[in-house]
Amino acid sequence: MSEAFERPLRVALLGCGVVGSAVARLLTEQADDLAARVGAPLQLAGIAVRRLNRHPDVDQSLLTTDAEALVSRDDIDLVVEVIGGIEPVRTLLLNALKSGKSVVSANKALLAEDGATLHAAATANGVDLYYEAAVAGAIPLLRPLRESLAGDRITRVMGIVNGTTNFILSRMDASGAGFAEALAEATALGYAEADPTADVDGFDAAAKAAILAGLAFHTRVTAADVFREGISEVTAADIASANAMGCTVKLLAICERSGTEESPSVAVRVHPAMIPRTHPLAGVGDAYNAVFVEAESAGSLMFYGRGAGAGPTASAVLGDLVAVARNRISGSRGAGESAYADLAVQPIGEVQTRYHVALDVADKPGVLASVAGAFADNGVSIRTVRQEGRGDAATLVLVTHDAPDAALSATVRRLAGYDFIRRASSVLRVEGMPAD
Amino acid sequence: MSEAFERPLRVALLGCGVVGSAVARLLTEQADDLAARVGAPLQLAGIAVRRLNRHPDVDQSLLTTDAEALVSRDDIDLVVEVIGGIEPVRTLLLNALKSGKSVVSANKALLAEDGATLHAAATANGVDLYYEAAVAGAIPLLRPLRESLAGDRITRVMGIVNGTTNFILSRMDASGAGFAEALAEATALGYAEADPTADVDGFDAAAKAAILAGLAFHTRVTAADVFREGISEVTAADIASANAMGCTVKLLAICERSGTEESPSVAVRVHPAMIPRTHPLAGVGDAYNAVFVEAESAGSLMFYGRGAGAGPTASAVLGDLVAVARNRISGSRGAGESAYADLAVQPIGEVQTRYHVALDVADKPGVLASVAGAFADNGVSIRTVRQEGRGDAATLVLVTHDAPDAALSATVRRLAGYDFIRRASSVLRVEGMPAD
Repeated sequence: MSEAFERPLRVALLGCGVVGSAVARLLTEQADDLAARVGAPLQLAGIAVRRLNRHPDVDQSLLTTDAEALVSRDDIDLVVEVIGGIEPVRTLLLNALKSGKSVVSANKALLAEDGATLHAAATANGVDLYYEAAVAGAIPLLRPLRESLAGDRITRVMGIVNGTTNFILSRMDASGAGFAEALAEATALGYAEADPTADVDGFDAAAKAAILAGLAFHTRVTAADVFREGISEVTAADIASANAMGCTVKLLAICERSGTEESPSVAVRVHPAMIPRTHPLAGVGDAYNAVFVEAESAGSLMFYGRGAGAGPTASAVLGDLVAVARNRISGSRGAGESAYADLAVQPIGEVQTRYHVALDVADKPGVLASVAGAFADNGVSIRTVRQEGRGDAATLVLVTHDAPDAALSATVRRLAGYDFIRRASSVLRVEGMPAD
Repeated sequence: MSEAFERPLRVALLGCGVVGSAVARLLTEQADDLAARVGAPLQLAGIAVRRLNRHPDVDQSLLTTDAEALVSRDDIDLVVEVIGGIEPVRTLLLNALKSGKSVVSANKALLAEDGATLHAAATANGVDLYYEAAVAGAIPLLRPLRESLAGDRITRVMGIVNGTTNFILSRMDASGAGFAEALAEATALGYAEADPTADVDGFDAAAKAAILAGLAFHTRVTAADVFREGISEVTAADIASANAMGCTVKLLAICERSGTEESPSVAVRVHPAMIPRTHPLAGVGDAYNAVFVEAESAGSLMFYGRGAGAGPTASAVLGDLVAVARNRISGSRGAGESAYADLAVQPIGEVQTRYHVALDVADKPGVLASVAGAFADNGVSIRTVRQEGRGDAATLVLVTHDAPDAALSATVRRLAGYDFIRRASSVLRVEGMPAD
């Protein structure tokens, strides 16, 4: 680090909602510490907002509604983006990068949709693009994947990366409530937005899964590559069925190395799944996030913390800001995009999964044989089967071994055609059980 | 990263025990991945060992017993040290740094005793000194503290950082065994070394605590600054007493911001403590490690994984090696030592702790009043008190509020002088309970 660097590094902040105003506040409150850690003061030089008169907590002279002009100013060194969404942010950030500014972003949707374009612009212009805050808030996750585990071979990343759905599923598990009731409670408590689609339908988790998979497997993965199933179809019966198995239900983002040694691929998916209560992810309640990482040499690692909120997100943004500021001073760049492995993304139908199926059946001879036959005909082998109740209240509960997801789907469709099955009361994937 | 960099980066490996041979193996097995991630091949150019004929698994032509000559060779770019201990390693690494080589070390004892000298040499010569493997094996911990949380204010780091003692305490908790019996089992299973002093007396954990405290609080902390109490005095009665309180006993490394806003300090200590079974660290069994970090903006974070062993340690070493190699190619350095805060280390006597005390007492009037008086006279207030049993089998169990450790020690000494107290069957600090 050059001791001679004395002028402040000038920061443009794009967006001043709860996260942006926390960033602005901490830049002032912790100015001395940040300057000591960076080697030069960080000076907030402008804040782009939509409406000028809505931000009483920040220095009014810094506010502007012209974000484009702000990111183009010659005196700006670093740009922090906490607006979110695709446009106009993509254009703004590309212009910032092209004019030689390093960028810190918390924008998971943009990074997951078009990270490659941004990374290319950063590389072409010799500047940094950091985005730790985009996944799992304050939990240091991207830097460990990109740097700490750079000498290892990651095999699997599995985590709870959406606090809203975790709150809803935790409530359903604790109270026996249905999805709609638990969602209403989440909305009332501020855990769910007025339009909860991005969270409950898994779009938010899928964007994060794409970013995690790209880093873990050195491959470009976009949100469109991610198989996605939300939690709106999870029923109280599913939760009860999970409980009866000693399990709970979580919305999981799963990124796996798949395929063969000769033809390796990655599988990336987001869906609700049963996991055993003894699994460390089962204990992650409310709006917390946690991510399991498995690597060949390191073994199993877990990272746990608050995945959202102004403070945690601002912490991640400022950590990145210190890093890109240090790089700016030393005239270097941090690790950029690494996509050399360029693995294919495996279609969900080929991904090996395991299903739990609960069937309300007529309790008569031959039913189990027919059900077992449906699984066998699709090449799916059964791990456990048990019958609960008798007569009209009989339920057959099956858990399969690993099998291609398409074969499992086909089995469930086949079962739906049997007239002795009154209904499939629960169909869920199962994760976190010991390997077959 | 310069695309023009084409020659391999040449690596000297110092030490070829279980970790060193894993590093050597992975450098070969993962050569293609490592080259793609670094931007140039990593070539193992020499291995310093004590005896030549003990390493059949590595390329014999690389072996040398002259470590000094190896680190001085002009063609070496990077040095990996997995020998351990203070000398001759300190001299070797100083010579490596002075001759312009970046160093990756797993040596907690050396970093905790004299990290400042090594950091100064790295800075003076514009090279890197990385040591993620020195604390908690494969768990990314130093990089998150140094970089991810560089924009936050860490208030507390509390963790289980020694696998041997965690195995012993887990066994004592599970089986009711005494310390000697559990240690014998750990030795038989290879979890404890023939001379277990470094582990059971807390020296290993204290070195790690010093490193963690230094990074978390931007202050130089050496092993000698760390208050240290091992687990050899932990008895089956302590464990039983903890169980009766809904707690378990763990050897904790605790680094806290202490003192006042005007006169801040750091408190760093290693000692066995009772923690509630509901605390996430209570569930960390066997030889696993886990570290809790609390920061003002980020909130609570936890990092969990395997803290030792050849694979996990090699993973951390190789992650660092990729980082220093990238820096070498780009002509930059990573974040160096940050000790600007230069906080005082608070003496243990002033540190606020909380005690659990179980006293075997004569069950007669006035006993509680006298005991309570001893606490009050030392300014220690009591949080809970309960009596178990009657008559000759009566035990008084007290848990205090936070108080200076010296006041708690003085209280225990005072109690020892009372003739109606047959013995103090358990005296342990308590951590992880809700704040007063």
